[in-house]
Amino acid sequence: MTENTNKKLSTESYKGVRDFYPEDMRVLNYIFSIWKETLQSFGYEEYNASILEPSELYEAKSGEEIVQNQTYSFVDRGGRNVTLRPEMTPTVARMVAARKRELAYPLRWFSIPNLFRYERPQKGRLREHFQLNADIFGIDSTHAEIEMIELSSAIMKNFGVKETDFEVRISSRKLINAVMSDWYELDEEKSRRLQKLIDRKNKITEEEFTTQAQEIAGSAFRFFSLSKKSEVYEEAMGILSIRQAKEELDEVIKELHRRGITNVIFDDELIRGFDYYTGIIFEVFDKHPDNNRSVFGGGRYDELLKLFGNETLSACGFGMGDVMLTETLKTYNLIPEEVKRSTTDISLICIDDQAITHAEKLAHKLRADGLKVAINISGKKVSDQIKHAEKTGIPYIVVIGENEIKTEKYILKNIITGEEKPL
Amino acid sequence: MTENTNKKLSTESYKGVRDFYPEDMRVLNYIFSIWKETLQSFGYEEYNASILEPSELYEAKSGEEIVQNQTYSFVDRGGRNVTLRPEMTPTVARMVAARKRELAYPLRWFSIPNLFRYERPQKGRLREHFQLNADIFGIDSTHAEIEMIELSSAIMKNFGVKETDFEVRISSRKLINAVMSDWYELDEEKSRRLQKLIDRKNKITEEEFTTQAQEIAGSAFRFFSLSKKSEVYEEAMGILSIRQAKEELDEVIKELHRRGITNVIFDDELIRGFDYYTGIIFEVFDKHPDNNRSVFGGGRYDELLKLFGNETLSACGFGMGDVMLTETLKTYNLIPEEVKRSTTDISLICIDDQAITHAEKLAHKLRADGLKVAINISGKKVSDQIKHAEKTGIPYIVVIGENEIKTEKYILKNIITGEEKPL
Repeated sequence: MTENTNKKLSTESYKGVRDFYPEDMRVLNYIFSIWKETLQSFGYEEYNASILEPSELYEAKSGEEIVQNQTYSFVDRGGRNVTLRPEMTPTVARMVAARKRELAYPLRWFSIPNLFRYERPQKGRLREHFQLNADIFGIDSTHAEIEMIELSSAIMKNFGVKETDFEVRISSRKLINAVMSDWYELDEEKSRRLQKLIDRKNKITEEEFTTQAQEIAGSAFRFFSLSKKSEVYEEAMGILSIRQAKEELDEVIKELHRRGITNVIFDDELIRGFDYYTGIIFEVFDKHPDNNRSVFGGGRYDELLKLFGNETLSACGFGMGDVMLTETLKTYNLIPEEVKRSTTDISLICIDDQAITHAEKLAHKLRADGLKVAINISGKKVSDQIKHAEKTGIPYIVVIGENEIKTEKYILKNIITGEEKPL
Repeated sequence: MTENTNKKLSTESYKGVRDFYPEDMRVLNYIFSIWKETLQSFGYEEYNASILEPSELYEAKSGEEIVQNQTYSFVDRGGRNVTLRPEMTPTVARMVAARKRELAYPLRWFSIPNLFRYERPQKGRLREHFQLNADIFGIDSTHAEIEMIELSSAIMKNFGVKETDFEVRISSRKLINAVMSDWYELDEEKSRRLQKLIDRKNKITEEEFTTQAQEIAGSAFRFFSLSKKSEVYEEAMGILSIRQAKEELDEVIKELHRRGITNVIFDDELIRGFDYYTGIIFEVFDKHPDNNRSVFGGGRYDELLKLFGNETLSACGFGMGDVMLTETLKTYNLIPEEVKRSTTDISLICIDDQAITHAEKLAHKLRADGLKVAINISGKKVSDQIKHAEKTGIPYIVVIGENEIKTEKYILKNIITGEEKPL
């Protein structure tokens, strides 16, 4: 359309999202491949869904704030409220609920969806990222949580992160809820508010915490640590609901230690944002001083499927984003060298048009042997064609000239080392 | 949030999109793997971008109708016009334009994006699908088109489609434009309208076509076939622009035949919807009587990068959607058997909690050997656990009881054939 050709378009991507050039895509694909291999080795099957979901799916059980302020939601031309999925858990719950009776349990599923959050640009946070989601359905016992933490640990190790460089912090919503209702004697509303405050505890001063906590829970409120033995602790443990939840948590940690996963610790200030957790929750922390933060986490959410019908279904899972993980991999220099080179093995350098025709036949054979072969069809000078291979990151070249066409003998040259050998 | 728990949510996905349960995902992954392997074997590198793009990217060069009526577009909270990408070509053009001077040519790129179209639901067409996009940049000569058609043909063959079951129909925008301007003597506007009419030629009657064509091009208009020799044909070939474009096209077909790709034919009624094509265009057609239709196509679009600056860059590519391709694969029964079973190799059946602990150690070893192993941690009866493996499609089981724990000897059973052997 000629009327537009004078107006120059910007080459920038939409604000807050990423372009994946081949060198970026190779890193992403490397991450996806480790995720996929590890998950499949534990018997998990891949699923996916559209990024478009009915908005009502997020209105019920995610944290309020997320739906109202942080999603991409719009009304389609048919008047439907649509949201670009901000997380995968409601989707997987929907899909499992739809076929609840046909599916076989334990049901082990994983997915690597792209997720969307409407973040304010100034934060510098991304509006689209990828997240591995792993879930197990139909297991009431803590075998589910144990497997989830074992799997999380296996992923970190498969990326080459040492057990001494990360830790798994675990807590229990059941335990926290028991303390809230049976020790602090708070109603559901106050309990929720206090938990949100605890979630921010290390971001505010001790004094601010106490003031705000007393505003919620009354002036008699005294926060006590569940991870340190104290007089209040002992008294609280006298309450059956609290003691049982604490024992369950201790048992999980003990079993993980027994399986050789020794970097698991109880963290009584771990809350996690989503409202749907009902049992044990956990987060994997990077311990490196330059990148000391939560990498990912998950937990049990037995009640979520109730939203779709009358029956509950035990569920436990976690979500691991590509952005935080990449920070950890960069911190420990764990992105492999081969990810940095092109996926193409050989560039066939052609001195003229006749060489291109010959190269095409040679490429056909090499490809049949599983090699990845590009033919330089540019017709440029040989030196320019070699520069092209260097710039693209293709490690090997074969020059095709008159002699090669005649003899059908070729020299394979490694352009990084300069080494040459017959093909 | 208790206030919502009484309202049941629907388990249906958003209108016009698909849920990928593991059995569907395996088919999709199979398609992706053949695409990826074939493209990489030809030296193409994978890239991607966000599905969110500035709306202006589509306002310039796609077919008008697509942008105005068929995209998901909305205004974000920052007042930006955003579109869920309906096609990948504008994105790849944007990315290449952004790094035009740093990239090395020939630049061979591919991507498997999900694309979004706002289709009216009654049509039964999908609103989201996946599409392989392959492009080569920086090649002026028809080596680019030849490679694209060769690659398309290789993909079809790698899926197992026989050369006799599909055909490649090719034409040339350069030829059509030359005929429009130098034979029919139409201006750009009329030329566009007549081309759109030719695109619909086989959907309307001969009479309707002539009436409408004469409305556009004047009462003297007589359509003549470029693929059949006639008096008018011979006369038209006397015009240099027309003859040159036709010779280029003939040469491409001849070279493809020389390379053993013999199912390529000239189709003078092939137009393709997008406005940005400038040279040779092609479509791959399924010849099966039950599925006789275009599967995918592409062409040369040398002018698209001009939108981002002053320089042009030669470009040639195609897009191949998963939906049409799947129809062809189903028509010829080409979805492999192994795609139908679970990705998990073995289910470890555990008679009690002690067996689970033991299974965990065994699984650890088997996984280290590259096997995909699920542990049945349900605590259900052995017969139920075997049913679980059958239902999930896991081909092998190992039952772990008292004896196996003691002897560390295990029997691997194929539950499809009943065959047993020591593990």
